[in-house]
Amino acid sequence: MEESRFAKRMQGMKGNAIRELLSVSQQPGMISFAGGLPSAETFDKETVAEIASEVLIQDGDKILQYGSTEGYAPLREELIKYLQKDGFNISHENLLITSGAQQGIDLVAKAIVNPGDVVVVESPSYLAALQIFKTYEAKLVVVPSDENGMVVEELENVIKKHNPKIVYSVPTFQNPSSVTMPLNRRKELCKLLDKNEVVFIEDNPYGDLRYSGEDQPKIYNLDKSNQTLYLGTFSKIISPGLRVGFAVGEKDLITKMRIGKQGTDVQTTTLAQAIIAEYFKRNILDEHIESIKDLYRKKRDYFLKKMDEFFPKEVKWNYPEGGLFVWAELPEEYDTKKLFEIAISKKVAFVPGQSFFVNDKKNCLRLNFSNATFEEMDQGIESLGKAIKEMIK
Amino acid sequence: MEESRFAKRMQGMKGNAIRELLSVSQQPGMISFAGGLPSAETFDKETVAEIASEVLIQDGDKILQYGSTEGYAPLREELIKYLQKDGFNISHENLLITSGAQQGIDLVAKAIVNPGDVVVVESPSYLAALQIFKTYEAKLVVVPSDENGMVVEELENVIKKHNPKIVYSVPTFQNPSSVTMPLNRRKELCKLLDKNEVVFIEDNPYGDLRYSGEDQPKIYNLDKSNQTLYLGTFSKIISPGLRVGFAVGEKDLITKMRIGKQGTDVQTTTLAQAIIAEYFKRNILDEHIESIKDLYRKKRDYFLKKMDEFFPKEVKWNYPEGGLFVWAELPEEYDTKKLFEIAISKKVAFVPGQSFFVNDKKNCLRLNFSNATFEEMDQGIESLGKAIKEMIK
Repeated sequence: MEESRFAKRMQGMKGNAIRELLSVSQQPGMISFAGGLPSAETFDKETVAEIASEVLIQDGDKILQYGSTEGYAPLREELIKYLQKDGFNISHENLLITSGAQQGIDLVAKAIVNPGDVVVVESPSYLAALQIFKTYEAKLVVVPSDENGMVVEELENVIKKHNPKIVYSVPTFQNPSSVTMPLNRRKELCKLLDKNEVVFIEDNPYGDLRYSGEDQPKIYNLDKSNQTLYLGTFSKIISPGLRVGFAVGEKDLITKMRIGKQGTDVQTTTLAQAIIAEYFKRNILDEHIESIKDLYRKKRDYFLKKMDEFFPKEVKWNYPEGGLFVWAELPEEYDTKKLFEIAISKKVAFVPGQSFFVNDKKNCLRLNFSNATFEEMDQGIESLGKAIKEMIK
Repeated sequence: MEESRFAKRMQGMKGNAIRELLSVSQQPGMISFAGGLPSAETFDKETVAEIASEVLIQDGDKILQYGSTEGYAPLREELIKYLQKDGFNISHENLLITSGAQQGIDLVAKAIVNPGDVVVVESPSYLAALQIFKTYEAKLVVVPSDENGMVVEELENVIKKHNPKIVYSVPTFQNPSSVTMPLNRRKELCKLLDKNEVVFIEDNPYGDLRYSGEDQPKIYNLDKSNQTLYLGTFSKIISPGLRVGFAVGEKDLITKMRIGKQGTDVQTTTLAQAIIAEYFKRNILDEHIESIKDLYRKKRDYFLKKMDEFFPKEVKWNYPEGGLFVWAELPEEYDTKKLFEIAISKKVAFVPGQSFFVNDKKNCLRLNFSNATFEEMDQGIESLGKAIKEMIK
């Protein structure tokens, strides 16, 4: 079919650049720090297998039948209780189960964004979110981020100037930068929300994975304006392949998102929802998260140690207190897309930072530390160090 | 949130009228012929439980990890082989696994439809499809149907006049009318497709469920213009709660749909896909479908017998050769929404036909025969017959 026959929203859309990179990074012999994959070591496949079998035998008639768009009732009950312990004062009308947190971004955009509407994103930003907003033909406006996340003073200016429908952020262990917004800035942000009519999306896929430092309260729970939409997921703490996430927000917005979901996929796979519900019922989720954190903390520490050892002093990087990524910066004159070519020839992959910027910035790289084994880190970071040295020599 | 803050596509959208009806029909003591639910008797929960456990133990690392947007490779392999036996000459670039067939409708609309573009639908038509096209702000144009489905001569006129982007149809055991387009009309339709640039959606959720009469070839396989998008699903033959369907079509269209799916839900739940793949590998699907057909054939026959017995002669209905529904018509002056009120008071529910028409038509009712038990049919059809008599007396 010719390109011109497709809808305007899809014309020229070539798919997620990172997903294309990932196909290169999956070549045999390649060590990949490119993806954002959880480690398969964190998948408790025996437990999931036992649970799947048990819930199907017990409740198969319900689990295999059509279910409600808002989600499987036992999961909704358990999740509300769990969220209440975390400070969320919500009821059923505030909750929608989604097919992964990413569906939450899609559904809120579907509910709110008309072509030409402004959506504010931080820079760098989560790539798939940028793509989703583009399919709704939003105009993206960028707010800079620093080591404390989105710069709220700048956001205030941008809101004044552009009157956006949505502000989108990953305020905790941001992808790709790994920075977390501290409490005082969260409070400032909420003051700003109080004064303006705008939906703030708090996308929080990594929040449960803190390896050091202090937990920050959720913006949803600080925001008295009732304009924050909170997106959570079980992808990083149970399994991404199950595709179960959730959205928490103001009831009219959740209702519109539910109506939007009816058309999109009717409902999220019930078996996947029933498996997550059983993690709550058996009270094994918190312990499971602790075991993941123990593993990832070791991986982060080892990864950073190896970077210290093998990366030249010209490279700067942050210290991630949680999440899955280290964000590194070369001197400004270097292009990490070129580095990618050299690295691939040395059998190691990462994601060039350019993919995460709405405006071009070429000297950054995102490194994933959750998926590789310790042996792969030994070899991969040494190779990547060599590639960098080759480039900047 | 105020209605005015939502996107134009969602303003005034109140959700699927049938899903609202269904909540009434789920009141205790209610006998429901309203839904389109498979019978829970057809769910082989022991087999699904055994398969789920086995595939997780064997391939859990892959099944629980992120997977590819186009679908789980083992399912794709098996499905292509299965479809080839059915006359589909396709390769991987023609296939996309979807989260239910309904996601296929959403993704093709997302790929093709700009606001104001014309989408042609048959009348009556599948309600959720109408809603999906509306969220993409399509202009719906109706082509009448008769006992042989969409009237192709009328379609020709409509295409000339409106130059639609999409023609949408359920040509086999249509929902709600249960009619099937015979071979000669399918061929005429394909001649029309040959002469015009338009995507034809062949939505086929019920095609495997034929209880009498002769199978008709798929329009996808008759269409030499390569403009048919075929949508299939495992919802009616394995389980709707698993949410696995598929789209078969021209490669550029499938590519755009895949890119659209990346944003929507990244991928379909892998465990659900792996369960379906195993049905193919174990070669148990065909036998399972036969057992479903045996059950539904008995249910259809019993349902029709009871209608003969209890419905007044003023009511006309078709003889469904397959699918899940009987479509009945009252004399034109009667409104089945009123009948619905009377029926509910007698503890029996159905879907008033008006929901399925883009233009109002008030005297039809859709009756589902797959879900109720034989005992429920005895009682429910007698009650419904009384309700009709009460109305038309």
